[in-house]
Amino acid sequence: MKGKLLLTTGAIAALCASPVFADEVEMLTQERGNVLWTLIAAVLVFFMQAGFAMVETGFTRAKNAVNIMMKNLMDFSIGSLGFWAVGFALMFGTTAGHLIGKEGFFLSDAMVGKEGGEWTLVFFMFQTVFAATAATIVSGAMAERTKFTSYLIYSIVISAIIYPISGHWAWGSLYHGDGWLEKLGFIDFAGSTVVHSVGGWCALAGAIVLGPRVGKYGNDGKPRAIPGHSITLAALGVFILWFGWFGFNPGSTTTADMSIGRIAVTTNLAAAAGAVTAMFAAWMLLGKPDASMALNGVLAGLVAITAPCADVSPLSAVIIGAIAGVIVVVSVLFIDRVLKIDDPVGAVSVHAVNGVWGTLAAGLFAQEAINGNAGLFFGGGMKPVMVQLAGIGSVFVWAFGGAMLLFTLIKVTVGLRVKREEEIAGLDIGEHGMEAYSGFQIFTTEN
Amino acid sequence: MKGKLLLTTGAIAALCASPVFADEVEMLTQERGNVLWTLIAAVLVFFMQAGFAMVETGFTRAKNAVNIMMKNLMDFSIGSLGFWAVGFALMFGTTAGHLIGKEGFFLSDAMVGKEGGEWTLVFFMFQTVFAATAATIVSGAMAERTKFTSYLIYSIVISAIIYPISGHWAWGSLYHGDGWLEKLGFIDFAGSTVVHSVGGWCALAGAIVLGPRVGKYGNDGKPRAIPGHSITLAALGVFILWFGWFGFNPGSTTTADMSIGRIAVTTNLAAAAGAVTAMFAAWMLLGKPDASMALNGVLAGLVAITAPCADVSPLSAVIIGAIAGVIVVVSVLFIDRVLKIDDPVGAVSVHAVNGVWGTLAAGLFAQEAINGNAGLFFGGGMKPVMVQLAGIGSVFVWAFGGAMLLFTLIKVTVGLRVKREEEIAGLDIGEHGMEAYSGFQIFTTEN
Amino acid sequence: MKGKLLLTTGAIAALCASPVFADEVEMLTQERGNVLWTLIAAVLVFFMQAGFAMVETGFTRAKNAVNIMMKNLMDFSIGSLGFWAVGFALMFGTTAGHLIGKEGFFLSDAMVGKEGGEWTLVFFMFQTVFAATAATIVSGAMAERTKFTSYLIYSIVISAIIYPISGHWAWGSLYHGDGWLEKLGFIDFAGSTVVHSVGGWCALAGAIVLGPRVGKYGNDGKPRAIPGHSITLAALGVFILWFGWFGFNPGSTTTADMSIGRIAVTTNLAAAAGAVTAMFAAWMLLGKPDASMALNGVLAGLVAITAPCADVSPLSAVIIGAIAGVIVVVSVLFIDRVLKIDDPVGAVSVHAVNGVWGTLAAGLFAQEAINGNAGLFFGGGMKPVMVQLAGIGSVFVWAFGGAMLLFTLIKVTVGLRVKREEEIAGLDIGEHGMEAYSGFQIFTTEN
Repeated sequence: MKGKLLLTTGAIAALCASPVFADEVEMLTQERGNVLWTLIAAVLVFFMQAGFAMVETGFTRAKNAVNIMMKNLMDFSIGSLGFWAVGFALMFGTTAGHLIGKEGFFLSDAMVGKEGGEWTLVFFMFQTVFAATAATIVSGAMAERTKFTSYLIYSIVISAIIYPISGHWAWGSLYHGDGWLEKLGFIDFAGSTVVHSVGGWCALAGAIVLGPRVGKYGNDGKPRAIPGHSITLAALGVFILWFGWFGFNPGSTTTADMSIGRIAVTTNLAAAAGAVTAMFAAWMLLGKPDASMALNGVLAGLVAITAPCADVSPLSAVIIGAIAGVIVVVSVLFIDRVLKIDDPVGAVSVHAVNGVWGTLAAGLFAQEAINGNAGLFFGGGMKPVMVQLAGIGSVFVWAFGGAMLLFTLIKVTVGLRVKREEEIAGLDIGEHGMEAYSGFQIFTTEN
Repeated sequence: MKGKLLLTTGAIAALCASPVFADEVEMLTQERGNVLWTLIAAVLVFFMQAGFAMVETGFTRAKNAVNIMMKNLMDFSIGSLGFWAVGFALMFGTTAGHLIGKEGFFLSDAMVGKEGGEWTLVFFMFQTVFAATAATIVSGAMAERTKFTSYLIYSIVISAIIYPISGHWAWGSLYHGDGWLEKLGFIDFAGSTVVHSVGGWCALAGAIVLGPRVGKYGNDGKPRAIPGHSITLAALGVFILWFGWFGFNPGSTTTADMSIGRIAVTTNLAAAAGAVTAMFAAWMLLGKPDASMALNGVLAGLVAITAPCADVSPLSAVIIGAIAGVIVVVSVLFIDRVLKIDDPVGAVSVHAVNGVWGTLAAGLFAQEAINGNAGLFFGGGMKPVMVQLAGIGSVFVWAFGGAMLLFTLIKVTVGLRVKREEEIAGLDIGEHGMEAYSGFQIFTTEN
Repeated sequence: MKGKLLLTTGAIAALCASPVFADEVEMLTQERGNVLWTLIAAVLVFFMQAGFAMVETGFTRAKNAVNIMMKNLMDFSIGSLGFWAVGFALMFGTTAGHLIGKEGFFLSDAMVGKEGGEWTLVFFMFQTVFAATAATIVSGAMAERTKFTSYLIYSIVISAIIYPISGHWAWGSLYHGDGWLEKLGFIDFAGSTVVHSVGGWCALAGAIVLGPRVGKYGNDGKPRAIPGHSITLAALGVFILWFGWFGFNPGSTTTADMSIGRIAVTTNLAAAAGAVTAMFAAWMLLGKPDASMALNGVLAGLVAITAPCADVSPLSAVIIGAIAGVIVVVSVLFIDRVLKIDDPVGAVSVHAVNGVWGTLAAGLFAQEAINGNAGLFFGGGMKPVMVQLAGIGSVFVWAFGGAMLLFTLIKVTVGLRVKREEEIAGLDIGEHGMEAYSGFQIFTTEN
C-alpha cells in the first residue's frame, strides 16, 4: 500500500507541475505577492514627496524654506483628498468614450464594493502617490513668488482633474484599459509623459504666467544666478528621489513578477549615466563640474527611463540616460538664457523635456520581447515613433493649455503672485509668519 | 497514453483547487509572505526613529541639537537592549493572570527554541521598533532641559517595563492573546493607546515634573514662542514618519493578506485630512497657515487612525483625521496657554490626546465586517465605546501614574534637569562638549 | 459521482502535501519571493548612499559640503556603470582558476541571455549597490583635500577591479560559488571583509598617501579637533545607514526564507550594543558622552555583525556589537593620536578594523546549526579562526596593496591633492565654483 502510494505521489507531483496546475498555484500566490509588492512600491513612491521637498528647498533661498515645505506638504495632502474624491474616478473609472472615467468618486461601492475591491484599494494607494508626484513637480518651477492660497487652488485642480484625464487616455480604466492613446499602442510604462511631462508642462505654464523672481534678470536682460541655500539637502533629496524611483518604475508592474529586477537595473543605469553626462556637459559648458547640474542629471535620467524601463536592454538604458543628462544641461541653459523663463529648480527641463525624450526613447529602443538580450536594439521603427509623438503632443496640448487657462484665471481673480515687498523679505514671514532657521545669521539683503 | 494523461491532469488540477488543497498552498506561501511583510514593515517603523529625531531637533533650538540626536539614538539603542532582555517577555510571554508576561527574557529558548522560533524572531523585531517608538515620543516633550543620564535611566524603564505591561493587557501574549483588555473586546489595531498614548502620557508626566524651559513663561505668566531652528528638518521628519507609518499600521497585520491595501489607504487619508484641517484651524486661530501646526496635523491624523485603521472605511478615515487635525491645534494652544505646561514639540497633543481620540474613534466608526463598503458607518454603539474608555482610562492610570512616580524618583535622586546656566548655554556644550553646527554663526543670547 | 470525487480530492490533497509536491510549490513561490525580497533589499542598500553622504558631510566642514555630495553621487554613478561594464563579470562570471571571473562584461548574453537571466538581473542589482558601498567608504577618509578628478579615477578602479576580484575569492561565481577562500570554508555572510574591510583598507591607503589636512597636526605633532558642520545630518546619516543595513544583512540571503528575521534581530542588537558601549567608552576616555563616537559605535556594531549575522544567536550579537563599540573608540583615538593618520570621519576604524573584528567573530561565535538556541555558543574553535585569518590577511594584502599602488600612481601623474590655498578656502569653490549654504554666515578663517 505504501509503495503504491509513493508511486502515485510521484505521478501526481509530475501532473501538479503541469501548466494547468501551475496556473492555480500561480493565481493564489501571485495575488498576495502583487498586493505586497504594489503596496511597498507605493510607499517608496510616497517618500519621493520628501525628496521633492528637499530638492526644491535646497535649490532655493533660506527665506522661502517654510513656504516650500508647506507647499509640498499641502499638495500631497490636498492632492490625496482630491484624487480620492474625484481624480481616481476620472482616471480609472469605466471609460466614457475613451476620454474620461465616470465611476468611483469617493471610492464608492461601484469601485470597491465588488469582488476585487481589496485589490482596488491597493491600486488606488499606488495611483494616489503617482498623482501627487505630478502635482508636486509644479511647486519647484513656481517657487519663491507664488501666493500660498493660489497654490492650494491649482494644486487640487492638477491632482483631481488635469492629471487624471490625460492619464485616462494613456492608462485607461481599471478593468478595461481602454484610453484612446492606449488603444493606439502608446507606450508609457511608468509615466514619462503621463506623470512627468504633465507636471512639467503645468510647471512651464506656471513659470510663464508668474514671470521671473525679483532680481533674476538685470536691466540688460542677463540672467543672474540665485544660488540655493543648501546643496546638502538638495543632494539628499535627489538620493531620496532615486530611492523612491525604485518603487515608481518597477512598481508600475503592479505585479510581483520576475521583470522587476530588469526594470530596477535599467532605472539605475539610466540615472547613473545621466549624472555622469550632465556633470561632464556642465564641466565643458560652464568650466566646473557643477553640482546642481549633476543632481538634475540624475533626475533627467530617471524621468527619461520611466517610459521605456520595462522594454529596453541595460545598454539601451545607459544610452537613454546619457542623452538625458546632456539634454537637461542644455535645456536648463536654454530656458534660463534664451527663453528667459525663471524656473528656480529646473523642473521644466527635468520633467517636461526629458519626459518627452523618454517617451520618444520608448518608441526608438523598445524591443518586442525582452529576454536576456543585453545589446542595443532599435525595435521601434517609424510607426511606434509616430504613436509616441501623438501621445506627447496631445498631452502637451491638454496639460499646458489647461494649466495656462488655470493660472490665468487664478491671476485675474485671487492673484497668483505675492507682493514685491513680501517676495524680497521672503514668503516665510509674509505667508506663514515664521522663519525656517531661527537663530541662524542669514544674509537677506541680496538673497 | 498522452491523451489520457492530459485528461487526468485536468481532473487533478480541478481537485487541486479544492479548499483542502488551497489551504496547504496557502500555508506554505503565507508563512513566507508573512515573514517578508512583517520584516519589511519593521524596517519602515525603525526608520521612524530618524523621523522623530528630525522633528524634535527641527522644532527646538540649535544649541540643543546634539543632545536631541543623542537622546533619540540612545533611547532606541538602550530600548532595543531592554526590550530584548525584559520587555518582550513581559509583553508577549505566557500570561500571568492576564496582567503580565512571564517568559522569554533575553529571547530564551522558552521563547525561540521551539517550532515557530524563526517566526518569533521576526515578530520580536517588529515589536522592538514599536517599543522604541513609545520611548522616543517622550524626548520631544522633555527637550532642551533634561539631564542626559536621567534620560538614559527613564528611557530604559519605559521600553522595558511601562510600555510592555500595558501592552500585554491590550495585545496579550505571543501564543494566547489573552490580556485582560483584549478579552473585554478592546480595539487598538496598531497602537493609538498601546504605543502613542503610553508615550504621550509619559511625556506629559515628564513635562510636568521638569517644569517649563527658562524664558518660556514671562513674569506675567504669558507664554513666549521659542521657535525651532530648522522647519526644513522638522518637515523632513514628518515625511519620514508618514513613510514609516505605512509599516506601523499595515504592518500590524503581521500578515501579508489583502487587507494591507485598505489599511494603507485609511492611514494616508487620515494623515492628509489632519494636515489640511490643522492648517485651516491654525489659520483661523493664529491668523496664518502655521507650518508647525500643519506638520503636527499630519502626525495627529496618523496617531488617530492607528487604532481604527483596519476596521473603518476610507470616508470614516477622512473624518477621523480631519477631527484629529482640529484637536491637535486646540490641544497645543490649551496646554501652552491654559495649562502652562511646556511641551516644545507638541508631543502630548499629538500622541496622548489624539491617541485617546483614535481609540474612541475605533469604537465609534469600526464596522463589523469591512468589505467594499466605502461609506461612513457607526458600527460601534455604546458597548464598544465603554470598552474603549476602559482601555483609555486604565492605560492612562498606569502610564501617567508610573511615569510620574519614575520622574519624581529620578528628580529626588540623580536629578532630572540640567543647571540653569547649562540650559541657557545649551545642552550640547554642557552635556556633550560639542556643538551641532560648527562654523555657523548662531545667535545664542536669546535662543 | 460527486461522493467519489470528494473522496479522491481528499486523497490527492494528502498526496499534494507530500514532500515532492511541496518542493514544486516551494519552487514556484520561492522564486517570486526571492526576486521580491532581493530587490527590496537592494533598494534599502541603495539608500545607504544617502546615509554615507550625510555622515561624511556632517562630520566635515561646511566649505567642503558640495564636494562631498558630488563625490558620493559620482562614486555611485560611475561605480554603477563600472560594475555593469566590468566588475560584475570579474566578480561573478565563470571562474578562472578560482581567482577571477571571466564572463559577462556589460551584462552580455553569456550572463543574462539564458534561462534564469531575469534572476541574474535582480542579483546584479543587489551586487551593484554592494560594490558602490565599498567604493563610497573611501571618500570619508580622504575628505576635504582630494582632487575631484583623481576621485573619479580611483573610484571607478575600486568598483570595477579591486572590490570585485577579492569578492570573487570569497563569494565565487554566479553559478558555481568557487572562489578559493570560499572553498577553504571562509565565512563572510554579508561582507565584513568583502565589502567593509576592502573599503576600509582603500580608505587607509588613501589617507596615508594624501597626508593630513592643513592644520590637523600642530608643529608639536599634537592632533587638533576639526569639528564637523552638522551633527544633525551626521545622525540622520547614521539612521539611514542603520535602516539600509536591514537590506544589507538580511538581504544577503537573496532568499525570502524564514532566516531573515533572525538576521535582522542580530543586526539590530549589535548596532544597539555598539552605540551604547561606544558612548560609555568615550565617556570614560574623553569625559563626556561624545555624539560622534556614539554614532560611529552604531556603524561599528553594524560592520562587525555583517559577517556573522546569519550564524549567531541574539546574545552573541549583543556581545559582538558591544566589543565593536569599544574597538571603534580606541581605534579612532589610536589612529588619530598615535599613528597620526588623518581620517576625518573614522572610516578606517569603522570599516577596516571592525570588518576584521566581525570576520574573526564569525569564526568564534558561529554555530553549526542555528535553530532556536538563544544562548552564546563558541562553535568555531581554532580551525575556522585560522581560515578567517587567511581571508582577512589575503584581502588586506590585495586591497591595501592595490590601493597604495593606485593612489601613488595617481599622485605622481595627475596629482591626488588640491593646492593648499584651495584646501583652506574650501573645495566647494575651488572644485565646483559654488557654495553649499548660500546666504548663511559661516566662519571660514579657521574652519
